[in-house]
Amino acid sequence: MADVVEIARKTKKPVAPRRDPESEARLLQLAESRLAIEGVAPEIDAGRFAVKRFENEPLDIEADVFSDGHDKIACAVIFGPAGGEWQETPLVFWENDRWRATVSFPTPGPYRYSIIAWRDLHATWRDEATKKRDAGKLTELEMKEARNLLVEAQGSGRGSKNDAKALAKLIASYDKLEGRGDMDGRYALLTDPETVKLLYACGQRTNLTRYPIDVPVWVDREAAAFSAWYEIFPRSQSGDPNRHGTFDDVIARLPDIQEMGFDVLYFPPIHPIGKTNRKGKNNTLTPSETDPGSPYAIGSHEGGHDALHPELGSFDDFARMVSAAKDHGLEVAIDFAIQCSPDHPWIKEHPEWFDWRPDGTIKFAENPPKKYEDIVNVHFYRGALPSIWYALRDIVLFWLNKGVRIFRVDNPHTKPFPFWEWMIAEVRKVDPGAIFLAEAFTRPKVMKRLAKVGYNQSYSYFTWRNAKWELEEYLKELTTEECAEYMRPNFFVNTPDINPRYLQTSGRPGFRTRLALAATLGGNYGVYSGFELCEFLPVPGKEEYLNSEKYELRAFDWRAEGNIRDDIAFFNDLRRAEPAMRDFRSLQFFNFWNDQILYYAKRTADRRSYLLFMVCLDPFNAQGGHFEVPLWELGLPDNGTVQVEDLVHRHGFAWHGKMQHWWIDPKECPYRVFRITD
Amino acid sequence: MADVVEIARKTKKPVAPRRDPESEARLLQLAESRLAIEGVAPEIDAGRFAVKRFENEPLDIEADVFSDGHDKIACAVIFGPAGGEWQETPLVFWENDRWRATVSFPTPGPYRYSIIAWRDLHATWRDEATKKRDAGKLTELEMKEARNLLVEAQGSGRGSKNDAKALAKLIASYDKLEGRGDMDGRYALLTDPETVKLLYACGQRTNLTRYPIDVPVWVDREAAAFSAWYEIFPRSQSGDPNRHGTFDDVIARLPDIQEMGFDVLYFPPIHPIGKTNRKGKNNTLTPSETDPGSPYAIGSHEGGHDALHPELGSFDDFARMVSAAKDHGLEVAIDFAIQCSPDHPWIKEHPEWFDWRPDGTIKFAENPPKKYEDIVNVHFYRGALPSIWYALRDIVLFWLNKGVRIFRVDNPHTKPFPFWEWMIAEVRKVDPGAIFLAEAFTRPKVMKRLAKVGYNQSYSYFTWRNAKWELEEYLKELTTEECAEYMRPNFFVNTPDINPRYLQTSGRPGFRTRLALAATLGGNYGVYSGFELCEFLPVPGKEEYLNSEKYELRAFDWRAEGNIRDDIAFFNDLRRAEPAMRDFRSLQFFNFWNDQILYYAKRTADRRSYLLFMVCLDPFNAQGGHFEVPLWELGLPDNGTVQVEDLVHRHGFAWHGKMQHWWIDPKECPYRVFRITD
Repeated sequence: MADVVEIARKTKKPVAPRRDPESEARLLQLAESRLAIEGVAPEIDAGRFAVKRFENEPLDIEADVFSDGHDKIACAVIFGPAGGEWQETPLVFWENDRWRATVSFPTPGPYRYSIIAWRDLHATWRDEATKKRDAGKLTELEMKEARNLLVEAQGSGRGSKNDAKALAKLIASYDKLEGRGDMDGRYALLTDPETVKLLYACGQRTNLTRYPIDVPVWVDREAAAFSAWYEIFPRSQSGDPNRHGTFDDVIARLPDIQEMGFDVLYFPPIHPIGKTNRKGKNNTLTPSETDPGSPYAIGSHEGGHDALHPELGSFDDFARMVSAAKDHGLEVAIDFAIQCSPDHPWIKEHPEWFDWRPDGTIKFAENPPKKYEDIVNVHFYRGALPSIWYALRDIVLFWLNKGVRIFRVDNPHTKPFPFWEWMIAEVRKVDPGAIFLAEAFTRPKVMKRLAKVGYNQSYSYFTWRNAKWELEEYLKELTTEECAEYMRPNFFVNTPDINPRYLQTSGRPGFRTRLALAATLGGNYGVYSGFELCEFLPVPGKEEYLNSEKYELRAFDWRAEGNIRDDIAFFNDLRRAEPAMRDFRSLQFFNFWNDQILYYAKRTADRRSYLLFMVCLDPFNAQGGHFEVPLWELGLPDNGTVQVEDLVHRHGFAWHGKMQHWWIDPKECPYRVFRITD
Repeated sequence: MADVVEIARKTKKPVAPRRDPESEARLLQLAESRLAIEGVAPEIDAGRFAVKRFENEPLDIEADVFSDGHDKIACAVIFGPAGGEWQETPLVFWENDRWRATVSFPTPGPYRYSIIAWRDLHATWRDEATKKRDAGKLTELEMKEARNLLVEAQGSGRGSKNDAKALAKLIASYDKLEGRGDMDGRYALLTDPETVKLLYACGQRTNLTRYPIDVPVWVDREAAAFSAWYEIFPRSQSGDPNRHGTFDDVIARLPDIQEMGFDVLYFPPIHPIGKTNRKGKNNTLTPSETDPGSPYAIGSHEGGHDALHPELGSFDDFARMVSAAKDHGLEVAIDFAIQCSPDHPWIKEHPEWFDWRPDGTIKFAENPPKKYEDIVNVHFYRGALPSIWYALRDIVLFWLNKGVRIFRVDNPHTKPFPFWEWMIAEVRKVDPGAIFLAEAFTRPKVMKRLAKVGYNQSYSYFTWRNAKWELEEYLKELTTEECAEYMRPNFFVNTPDINPRYLQTSGRPGFRTRLALAATLGGNYGVYSGFELCEFLPVPGKEEYLNSEKYELRAFDWRAEGNIRDDIAFFNDLRRAEPAMRDFRSLQFFNFWNDQILYYAKRTADRRSYLLFMVCLDPFNAQGGHFEVPLWELGLPDNGTVQVEDLVHRHGFAWHGKMQHWWIDPKECPYRVFRITD
């Protein structure tokens, strides 16, 4: 044996004593995890953030699991509510040491999963015994070893009382067959599927190894992942540009909105608006006395974030409106915009939440050299930590209490990530069905971080993705890369801040194209009112709307000629009727040999709901070309036949063979939706 | 404010109290990490395993680092020996919120790195002040804010005494300029590079955030990553197949081996060999009385893993041989093969380390229905835990004490991963320069796991990768995927167990081709003696050598005609002379429009050593075609000129332009090595 003293002398280095306690503790700790469990997916930043699913949505789990040597192994997913009981489901071998299982969670709330693995000596025995038997080399020795394993199983402490009884019976049967010298009978007994099942339930789990991370899973209600939003300014709903709209005006509009089939009705801020440095029409700095100001300049002597703009109505009116919306299949979402007007009550009540300059004046929002003098920002550290964290949480709880469970959050990327992580978790303790949409149009990693810290939905770059290659690239990222596990985009076709350049020139066909894309590519999508009227007039050269509702009251003829309300209703009906539409990540792009036609499918896992979409991206010219019917996806040969229903023109036909041709005239209708019916 | 009681009543769920201690603790904990630090690379399994480097090898570190809002941020890598002092080096912005830095470590041993980040209010001030100044809007207010930051820096507790003095001087200069009303002067002072440097050193680090993982880095001596191995059976070195070779015979061979330029001289096991069930020539079960047996059947009444086979010599002879090898530039590596012959002393001394069958016989190694009756395996759990762990560790320490620091480990994948992780760590406490090579030819993830748990080198699939596409694919995996951070292949052209099919039919040109590939693609590579003589006779239909040295004594004429000793010396000289050869991961493949010619480059980061290789994979026919000179890599236009030295034919020339043509006749020489000289 090694003369450690001699080594120490020679190397002049400290030598590990033969059995020092620290080294032995490390040995025993390592020995506890004999099997390797790696590459666990999905898992966000080593379990730092939660994977997201909605109620009963399948969660496919994969891991590399293997041991040393040639023994058979088994492994399982353990999962359950955070802090609650664990359930278990076996992982099934896939390929190359990778195993898979699918689980789901029944109700909103926090869950977690992990993985266990063990050497399955019963399976090893069956494997080796079968090989030996096939070679005529199975002997009584192997049989004895099998019986020993059965006896060990009796001492495993695993399985139910019934399992214990079944096991005792199994051993008795074995012994009877042994008494008769019946080796074939015992082999058959030991490899019987019922025996295999019984031993899975109560056999010894040798070298049981547990993956050290409990991977958190946050489960939402389905509306977090699948919803159609409609955005209106309540103050513009009176039908008269000279009369400030009210919640009752909104109530009057509900049948109209219901007809289009939306799920969520979203309002920009509905709080009192500051007077100081108020903006005039078209974002001017010279308002008239009657200009209502931007609703984002929140707070006046009439109150702040927990008050209603008096001209909209009272809290009772608000409650009636929320309830009426519900009766029309609509859930109300409001804006959570943290900035304050210079008249916000907080500025006097909590000067420590604001930045002050050396001359004692308040620091306005700015993007140097620009200043935004109708807005001041709060800060979250120094004297504001933790008081403003609580105050803002309580604002959200306040509105939750008023029946609002969906919050569109303005510019969350300019507030600390830890605040969102904490606040959203706090609100979820009260209502796990609360939904937060991050209105962050910023750098990709920042947007992803907001989703990681808890946002249920995220604004996206969809609004600016027009070409076929960029739509395909972006959607592949969103539906197949890691972010698909925690980020759910909401594809807005337009917003009060974004009048997309494509729509400024596309005419009506372009509006129908963008609607089709948003409604079918997005799990969540949104429309800012006016879109259905093909409103497009910009502030020249900008992506802003001319005469924006942000700065003035407007009135619209909601049934004006050329509106695309029927298209909207068509897609919202389709979304409700076809289960395929509910799986954002089931998207697949297929070949259509024309760069102006985007061609894709959505499907349920069982293929029962299987839809194909063609959308013409060129709003001016008819486009056509050859395309591939994805027969291989349906298990059909290249010359197979599928029955198809054209859901736009409401007739059925068949495609014979993989290669087909289609033609789309955007003036007639820029999209096609086909349902595979057989 | 929210009426939490009312919410509780309505939702029938527990409500977060306004400020309960648990929630506040979470708030404060989250608030401490305002900045996001993500995507840290390299990092193996969230820091579970070490990244590997050798002494002074650059470690490029990357991370996504960002904050909320628009403030400027700064970040740095902190690093140093495990348990020792931290050093710091700034991360530099690269793109898309990703930052980079390069560090290195001076001596073998355990290190770690992590990342810190903070909001840099000085940088924010400079940025905003510059924009305002350019717009003519810089005022005394901004200057006051800057001065406040300087005063805060004085209270930061950061920086040296000299920094403190410099800071005081800076403030005094500022005040003097202020007294003169000189705003331009103050702006110039505050944005001066010296000021920037000073404030980096001693400025306040606002919202300092630390990445929570200390990423472990294991640093080896360079031989772990860069070595040329030569394998011999000492017992076959007498030159007479009827006389058992000795360590003195090995000594006599050293000049010959040195001439070929190898670094490591590796022996299969040199321990006493069991008699029971000994194998005869060509792996037969019917040995004659004089057959020496397989050296892998370790242990007899003469001793076990800590004994020498008596016919090889004494420990004194061994020590002389090790020392003589060193004098010839060779380091001795031995085999660590844990299995035992049935005659190994451990079987009686430690029956608890072995598996016994119900009839009281020992369980032989088997791969059902095959049995290997000259070998029994130990086990590592039950009664053997932890005693055999210590015993095996001590065997390695024993040989370390005998001057051996490199161990080629036989079939490590059939022993528990935790054993290797613990044992290698234990040995490294004594000698951080100890090197372990894993002889695991098994599934990819198992091989990678062995590298993760500590193996310095790994056998690879190189031996079976012959086609251009598979060499490119495999080498790209090894040099660019995550495994490049912890796995270092050793490219053996052959082994006593592998007589590759390619070489069985290729003739001499194929041997030169495989040598060229191994020596230039591999950081580590190895040759089993006989290869230089183009030995290829197989057991018919198998990848085994006929009359294998594993089962009998052999004698060779080491200078036989047709040997490729000069080629070996050429490549080993090249490896020593050209720094490019030392960077396994610098490999790049370029276009050569012929599937029989592999074309690639190796280079140092500074391009001072830049080599291009062409290797003809077809051992029979001359091959040629067009190829691209990678002018773009050298910063040259497509019509640029490079001076090139043909290191095989020892003459220089120039390539004018990117597209060139070359022709290789494998009978003349199947490889080319070009050095870019200008």
